[in-house]
Amino acid sequence: MASSFAHDVEGSLRELLGTRSAALAAVDPRCEAIGTRLVDFVLGGGKRMRPGFALAAYEGCAGTRAEGPLVARDQAVRAASALELIQACALVHDDIIDSSATRRGVPTVHVALAAEHRAQGWAGEPEAYGRSQAILLGDIALAWADDVFTGALLSSPGIGIDTLSRAHDAWAAMRTEVLGGQMLDVHAEATGAADLETPAKVNRFKTAAYTIERPVHLGAVLAGADDATIAALRDFGVSIGLAFQLVDDLLGVFGDPEVTGKPSGDDLREGKRTVLINSALSAGGPAAEELASMLGTELSAERLARARAILEDAGAVEHVRADVDALTEKGLRALDAAELSPSGREALRALALRAVSRTS
Amino acid sequence: MASSFAHDVEGSLRELLGTRSAALAAVDPRCEAIGTRLVDFVLGGGKRMRPGFALAAYEGCAGTRAEGPLVARDQAVRAASALELIQACALVHDDIIDSSATRRGVPTVHVALAAEHRAQGWAGEPEAYGRSQAILLGDIALAWADDVFTGALLSSPGIGIDTLSRAHDAWAAMRTEVLGGQMLDVHAEATGAADLETPAKVNRFKTAAYTIERPVHLGAVLAGADDATIAALRDFGVSIGLAFQLVDDLLGVFGDPEVTGKPSGDDLREGKRTVLINSALSAGGPAAEELASMLGTELSAERLARARAILEDAGAVEHVRADVDALTEKGLRALDAAELSPSGREALRALALRAVSRTS
Repeated sequence: MASSFAHDVEGSLRELLGTRSAALAAVDPRCEAIGTRLVDFVLGGGKRMRPGFALAAYEGCAGTRAEGPLVARDQAVRAASALELIQACALVHDDIIDSSATRRGVPTVHVALAAEHRAQGWAGEPEAYGRSQAILLGDIALAWADDVFTGALLSSPGIGIDTLSRAHDAWAAMRTEVLGGQMLDVHAEATGAADLETPAKVNRFKTAAYTIERPVHLGAVLAGADDATIAALRDFGVSIGLAFQLVDDLLGVFGDPEVTGKPSGDDLREGKRTVLINSALSAGGPAAEELASMLGTELSAERLARARAILEDAGAVEHVRADVDALTEKGLRALDAAELSPSGREALRALALRAVSRTS
Repeated sequence: MASSFAHDVEGSLRELLGTRSAALAAVDPRCEAIGTRLVDFVLGGGKRMRPGFALAAYEGCAGTRAEGPLVARDQAVRAASALELIQACALVHDDIIDSSATRRGVPTVHVALAAEHRAQGWAGEPEAYGRSQAILLGDIALAWADDVFTGALLSSPGIGIDTLSRAHDAWAAMRTEVLGGQMLDVHAEATGAADLETPAKVNRFKTAAYTIERPVHLGAVLAGADDATIAALRDFGVSIGLAFQLVDDLLGVFGDPEVTGKPSGDDLREGKRTVLINSALSAGGPAAEELASMLGTELSAERLARARAILEDAGAVEHVRADVDALTEKGLRALDAAELSPSGREALRALALRAVSRTS
C-alpha cells in the first residue's frame, strides 16, 4: 500500500512540476533552466514520508465512510504531494543555513549553482550567486506548494467551503510550526541553549508536527474524518514524530556513515542542541563540561569515541532509547483508538514502525 | 479614496500580524521575538502601492455591479493586504541577495539580526546567523501571505468555488512571475546581459506583473468583473507597471539621494542591467565600452557625472523618457476602455500618475 502511494506521489509531482516549469519558461527559458535544479532535487530522492502518512490517514478514514471521502483520491494525492514542495524549500534553505556542501551524495543546490557560476566565469562572487538563486528556488518551492495544495482542493469535484477551510487551517498551522521550529533551532544553536525544553520544542514543531501530525491531520480532513478520529491521529503523529526525531538524534551521534550517508558524529561537530546531547549536558559535572567543549568542533576518531562514552555514561542514551520506546507505544495506542479501516491502520502502523526503527 | 485604502490596509495588517505572531508565540516566545522584526518591517513603512491598486480596481468594478461585489469589502481588504506580505518576503530576501545594509534609513533585517548576535556574543558567525534567520523570516512572510489571502477569501460570506479558483489562479501566476523575474535579474547581473530584451522581461515580470497588473487583476476578480474589464485593467497594469520601472531606472542613475534615500547612481555601482543602461550599451562604440567598464564599480562624483553624460549623449535618457510617456498614455487609454465606476477610475488614474511621476 505504502509503495503504491509513493508511486502515485511520484507521478503527481512529475506532472505538477511540469506545469510549473512551463510557467517559468513563459517568463524566460533561463528561469526554466534554473528551475530545473529544483525539479531535479524534488524528483531525485526523498522517502516521500509526509505524503505517505497523509495518504495512509486519508485512505484509513475514507474506508470507514459509506458515503466515500470528501475529496477525490486523485486530488488528495496531489494535495499530499504539495508536502514534498514544502520539504524542498526547507531542505534547500536549510542547506544554505547549515552551509552544507552535499545532500544525498550530490552537491547541494546552492553549491551546484555556485559551481556553475565559477565554471562559466560570470561576474561577481560564485558563492553569493549560488546562495541568491537557491534562496529564490526555495521561495518558489514554497509558493508552488501552496499553488499545488490549494489548486488540488479547488479542483476536487463538489468540494465545500467547510472542507477547504478545515484543510487550509491545518496547512497554515503546519507551515508556521515548521518555520517557527526552525527559527528556534537556529536560535538555540547560537545561544548554546543547554536545557531540555528547547530541543523538545524544536522536535515538537520542526519535526513531529510537520512530519507526521499535520500530514495525518490533513489526510483525515480530506477524507472527511470526525473530530475524535482527527484528534487520535494527531496524538499518534505527535508521539511517533517525537520518537522519529529521537532516533535521528541517536543516529546523529552513533549512526554508521555508510548507512546514514552523513559523517559519523555529525550532530556533535555541528554543535546541535538535541535532547540526547542536552540530557548529558544537564547532568552537569566535569564530563558534561568536557562534552560541551567538544560541541561545534572537529572531532578525531578518539575524541568522537570519548563523546559517545560520555553520552552513554551519563545515561543519556539509555534515557533517549526508553523515550523512543515509550513514545512509540503511546503513538500506537492512539492509532488503535482511531476509527480507521483495517488496511489504513496497518499502513499507518507500518509507516510508524519504519520511522522509528530506521538506520538512515 | 486612496488614503482610506491605505488606512484600511494598515489596520488589516496590524490585526493579521497580531494573530500570526500569537501562533509563533505558541511555538516559543523566542520565535515571537524574532518574528517581531518581520512585523515591525511590514508595519514600519512602504507605500502600500500593491494593495492600493488592487482595492481601487475592486471598488471600481464593484461600483458597476447592481448585485454588489462577489467578495465582501472587509475580506477584499484582507486579501489585498496579503500583497504586502509577499512584498516583505521579496524585500527581506532581496536585501540578502544584494547585501544591502540599510532600507528606509534603518538596518536591513539580516543586518539587524547579525548585530544582535554580535552584541550578545553568541556562538558562530554573526553574519551567518543574521542571514539564516532572515531567510526564515522571508519564508514565513511568504507562507503568511498565502494564509492571509486564502483565509480572507474562505471567510467571505457566500463565496463560490469559481471565484476562489479565479482568484487563486491570478495569485499563483503572480508569485511565479515575480520570483521568475527576480531569478532572471540575478542571472542577468551575473552574466552581464547587455541586450534590451532581458531587462524588458525583468521589468515585465518582476515589476509590472507583480506591482500593478496582477493586483488590479485580483481586485477585479474579487469584485466579480467580466473578462473584458479584467483584460483592460491588466493592459493598464502592464503599461503603467513598465513605465513605473523605467522611472525607477532613471532615478537609479539621476535621482537625488536626499529624495530617493539611496546613494546617487546606485544602479551603476551595483552593475544593474536596466533598460536605460543597456540602451546605451547596445549603441556600441568607445563610450559604451567606457560605460561598461564603470558598471559594478565604486564611482567618484566625476566618474558618475561622466556615466550620466554617456547615457544622455547615447540618447538613452531621451529614449526611456519617451517610453515612459508612451506607456503612460497607453495605460491610461486602457483604463478608459475598462467598465468602472467614475470614482474607481479616478482612483486608478491617480495611483498611476503617482507611480510614474514619483521622485523617490
